[in-house]
Amino acid sequence: MNADTLPRPAPETIALLRAELSGHLGARVTTSQAVLEQHSHGEGLPAVAVPDLVVFPESNEEVALVLALCNAHRVAVTPFGAGSSLEGQVVALAGGVSLDMSRFNKMLDVSPESLDCRVQAGVTREALNAQIRDTGLFFPVDPGANASIGGMASTRASGTNAVRYGTMRENILGLTVVTPAGHIVRTGSRARKSAAGLDLTHLYVGSEGTLGVITEIQLKLYGLPEATIAAVCQFVSLEGAVAAVVTALQSNLKMARIELLDEVQMRAAINYSKLDYAEAPTLFLEFHGSPNGVREDAEMMQAITAEHGGGAFDFAERAEDRSRLWKARHNSYQAVRALSPGKSNMGTDACVPISALPACLLQTKADIVASGLTAPIVGHVGDGNFHLGILFDPNDAEETERAEALAFRTARRAIAMGGTCSGEHGVGLHKLVHMQTEHGEGVALMQAVKNALDPNGIMNPGKMYPSPTSFP
Amino acid sequence: MNADTLPRPAPETIALLRAELSGHLGARVTTSQAVLEQHSHGEGLPAVAVPDLVVFPESNEEVALVLALCNAHRVAVTPFGAGSSLEGQVVALAGGVSLDMSRFNKMLDVSPESLDCRVQAGVTREALNAQIRDTGLFFPVDPGANASIGGMASTRASGTNAVRYGTMRENILGLTVVTPAGHIVRTGSRARKSAAGLDLTHLYVGSEGTLGVITEIQLKLYGLPEATIAAVCQFVSLEGAVAAVVTALQSNLKMARIELLDEVQMRAAINYSKLDYAEAPTLFLEFHGSPNGVREDAEMMQAITAEHGGGAFDFAERAEDRSRLWKARHNSYQAVRALSPGKSNMGTDACVPISALPACLLQTKADIVASGLTAPIVGHVGDGNFHLGILFDPNDAEETERAEALAFRTARRAIAMGGTCSGEHGVGLHKLVHMQTEHGEGVALMQAVKNALDPNGIMNPGKMYPSPTSFP
Repeated sequence: MNADTLPRPAPETIALLRAELSGHLGARVTTSQAVLEQHSHGEGLPAVAVPDLVVFPESNEEVALVLALCNAHRVAVTPFGAGSSLEGQVVALAGGVSLDMSRFNKMLDVSPESLDCRVQAGVTREALNAQIRDTGLFFPVDPGANASIGGMASTRASGTNAVRYGTMRENILGLTVVTPAGHIVRTGSRARKSAAGLDLTHLYVGSEGTLGVITEIQLKLYGLPEATIAAVCQFVSLEGAVAAVVTALQSNLKMARIELLDEVQMRAAINYSKLDYAEAPTLFLEFHGSPNGVREDAEMMQAITAEHGGGAFDFAERAEDRSRLWKARHNSYQAVRALSPGKSNMGTDACVPISALPACLLQTKADIVASGLTAPIVGHVGDGNFHLGILFDPNDAEETERAEALAFRTARRAIAMGGTCSGEHGVGLHKLVHMQTEHGEGVALMQAVKNALDPNGIMNPGKMYPSPTSFP
Repeated sequence: MNADTLPRPAPETIALLRAELSGHLGARVTTSQAVLEQHSHGEGLPAVAVPDLVVFPESNEEVALVLALCNAHRVAVTPFGAGSSLEGQVVALAGGVSLDMSRFNKMLDVSPESLDCRVQAGVTREALNAQIRDTGLFFPVDPGANASIGGMASTRASGTNAVRYGTMRENILGLTVVTPAGHIVRTGSRARKSAAGLDLTHLYVGSEGTLGVITEIQLKLYGLPEATIAAVCQFVSLEGAVAAVVTALQSNLKMARIELLDEVQMRAAINYSKLDYAEAPTLFLEFHGSPNGVREDAEMMQAITAEHGGGAFDFAERAEDRSRLWKARHNSYQAVRALSPGKSNMGTDACVPISALPACLLQTKADIVASGLTAPIVGHVGDGNFHLGILFDPNDAEETERAEALAFRTARRAIAMGGTCSGEHGVGLHKLVHMQTEHGEGVALMQAVKNALDPNGIMNPGKMYPSPTSFP
């Protein structure tokens, strides 16, 4: 861990800050040990650091007040959404304030006419979709976990639908952000596109709380598709499944979802979600469009998969069958953990150009076998994005190190193939070691932007920007 | 004009710089009056400022050398692509060096497997598409003019296909940029998505040469659609045409292009491109997909247009008929100029949320009539984006001012409706006056980023960032 950017605040500073904050926010400033511990870590990684205070703001003005006070005291602020991030983004490395955004839970505006909405950052994606269901619209970005929209914006999240609908990057029209000095700034507009000025919106999307706090998000929405077909296709080999995906993408075939599960992930899914399939490499597919259009697309894909050793499509035509299928896919993380009760799941992801996907997946698979670890592969392969769920015992230092080493090599392999160390989980603590390798001199530009927008370095210190000593 | 950010260099500074540059680039450093004048302005606006030198670099290293020398001498650098920008982006307000990127004309890499390519910044979009034609792929972003890809990236350009394929923002995977200090930095990767670090790529896309110089661009490519149908539909009223577009978008109908031409623009197109249509509000449409899919889409759209007073579709089924149609659309700018020989065309654009499009277009139309000017409306209305081609005599100060005032009101109306002063032309000189109105405190953040990445302010000074005196 790399917490040398900002020292932990002195107890008297925290006492003073706490008194000032409590004067404005009352009981929404807490030092309850249970709450502090709940805010000390995200999912999956052993990394833990306990904040000094947890604060629950309810308005932009309260966020501005908290940030301005912390900035004046040089106390770290680490934004906290649903706590579902997998790379340690929410760990309060330098102590200070964990800024819990869960009370930012209001839909501010929905426009079915313009196919957009504005939500507060703490609204979760499931809550959003539940609230707009009767408009016939939906928000497609779907990272599996019921993450907050603010957290998804901050980590540039994506998920199963990205091959068709894009990631958070493509689906955010504008933001409200609060700067470390306490200014409330609206970025972007409600227009679908703009050429007017620096793209502040996309500077904050994926900045993982290191430049300020995202408090509101203007999102694109989509009409529910007229027709939907989902299907499962099982393969003799991983090579065949990947080759089918690459061929389909190159054929310009429109898919809404194309998910790969290797035979280990299938074993986990079969056990956990009671699926009636073989333990073999498998594609979960979905097509959205007009009734004839989706049928044509599915037939074309069936022809492609058959050429690569895929079996007959098992169609999930009814909404409840589709929902069961995608629920099983979404429960991958828990299903992997259930393979070895007591072990943790180090979820890591990487993303490569489509042409590199077959070699990357096969080399990674061989590496997993050689490591002696259990690490199912599952991926949004339509984007070249895949995940390992590396099982490890956090109390076993050797196994933890072996898991870390496997995750490290997976990232470096993806970078070497022209890809990225993370397609959707973000940098957090765990990928910091790859930033210099992936971005080279770009790291200095990122640091310059960080210094310009957070001159005191209070925002989520120790993340994203590698200090010169944090990598070889 | 706002050139107070950097003084024009002293003649002895230019003499010294010229000698240094010529030592490295020889005859590719010029003070030829004809070349200087050619680099003194873009398209459409009367604004002109003559640079002191025009430099034609041929490699990243040469760009780095030019920038480092200019930075040391505090001499302005204004990148110049094809010179087709409409808002004065290439005008060398503070003199200095006009950096002509036309010799960056190489395709560096094409990967049909990964559906991407890497091009040098001076490659034009027509040259790009000509060179990849035999791969079965195409690059869809199409602003009409045969702009350079570097210029299109710098201005966040889009065009007729954006409703389906997105703008430059959605189609750039990574860049090579040269910083003012002369560092050569690669941003992004070849992966389709990444959550690893600040989004430097999208910080430079749309920065209009104010942060550094874009020298290489990694682009997404697309398979040519299996089937394409184009059609023309004429309407009784502008209201009807716009209402049909809004209904289609809300119905989730997939269109590759949906262009509105008002009756004045149709008159210009009929005269200039010899089209056999009525002088009435008209939609030019195109659908891409499977053979049945495009037919279903076109039928659905025909039903929608009929409900709003649209006539029967005139289909352009053969490739040459489609090409003639879109050529007529692309020649709008010239067609408008031909309406009044001797006059200039102040092309301005704005973009609003879809729900605001009918009111915005009708109010703008009434405003044009009241202004006494001829200003056809044409637009990528699927994005909420529309253009006015305002005819004015640049030698008539009163008419020029009237044209400027109409463009000003059009931008402010769009901003007031939740939109942006430019959907795709960019800020340049002409929209500077709207930046504070549109972005509020965001302007200070943009300026902070600018100061961090170009501390001496040499990159395209006087653009993008309004000085406090440049707006009321």
